[in-house]
Amino acid sequence: MRVMGLDPGLTALGWGVVDVSGSKLVHVANGIVRTSPDDLGERLAHLFDELCRVWTQFSPDEAAVEQTFVNRDGAGTLKLGQARGIAMLVPARAGVKVGEYAPNAVKKAVVGVGHADKRQVDHMVKMQLPGAEIEGPDAADALAIAICHAHMVQTRKVVEVRA
Amino acid sequence: MRVMGLDPGLTALGWGVVDVSGSKLVHVANGIVRTSPDDLGERLAHLFDELCRVWTQFSPDEAAVEQTFVNRDGAGTLKLGQARGIAMLVPARAGVKVGEYAPNAVKKAVVGVGHADKRQVDHMVKMQLPGAEIEGPDAADALAIAICHAHMVQTRKVVEVRA
Repeated sequence: MRVMGLDPGLTALGWGVVDVSGSKLVHVANGIVRTSPDDLGERLAHLFDELCRVWTQFSPDEAAVEQTFVNRDGAGTLKLGQARGIAMLVPARAGVKVGEYAPNAVKKAVVGVGHADKRQVDHMVKMQLPGAEIEGPDAADALAIAICHAHMVQTRKVVEVRA
Repeated sequence: MRVMGLDPGLTALGWGVVDVSGSKLVHVANGIVRTSPDDLGERLAHLFDELCRVWTQFSPDEAAVEQTFVNRDGAGTLKLGQARGIAMLVPARAGVKVGEYAPNAVKKAVVGVGHADKRQVDHMVKMQLPGAEIEGPDAADALAIAICHAHMVQTRKVVEVRA
């Protein structure tokens, strides 16, 4: 099974693809789609086009994003929402449901504890995906989300077999 | 020139198309794309597909949305942002820039004052687009935004001629 993790942002949208076979994880690819602070519509169109291209190139079976932490910065939340809409649209158009995980669940799946800091998450992503060259922090976060989804799918299967 | 106004929302996305010729406005069409509170990705994909269909059917030359009023309800702002991302994506993919207008600017363009209430706006939209059957409040808002954009374009042209 192939999973794409997505870390949406208007300036930088991270993506990461891993193959899951039993409990084995293999890194496939990762990257960051960047937009310059120009026309909002053009930025969204660029995110969409690039993400469609990556999606077609790697054809994931499943996808996941982090549940967004909503703060008091309304303008920031709106911007993030717009980018997140694009990140969820691309898998949905391919008929793929998008798993959503709380930041703490992602950290727990990758590091083992829910209160890990960013460097720990980056370190454990690299440990779990040996040989992966990671384009930057947004791509590392996307891979962490993909790893979290892979764990959840494993757990789901174990539960199904037991049931 | 043909203008599409857009009033984005996750549950109901209003759209309205008007033709502008000099100071004359003619209603072309309006509608509301509705989604049921199901899977978020599916909702966004439905908004995108329907808006693409409407866009292709009427081929607007310009598009406009209302600037979003950001409040303290972060979860609501995020939802709206996701729908707004889709509303801005569709014109942008067609190479059309999307005008953004503050709610007060829309009211002022349609009613003449910036503090008009919703019923006044609806009434004046119907007055300015005689014969239009309006599908609902979200479609009326979308038509108001299209009318506002048409006024702004007229003003722009007058300024250009004078300059």
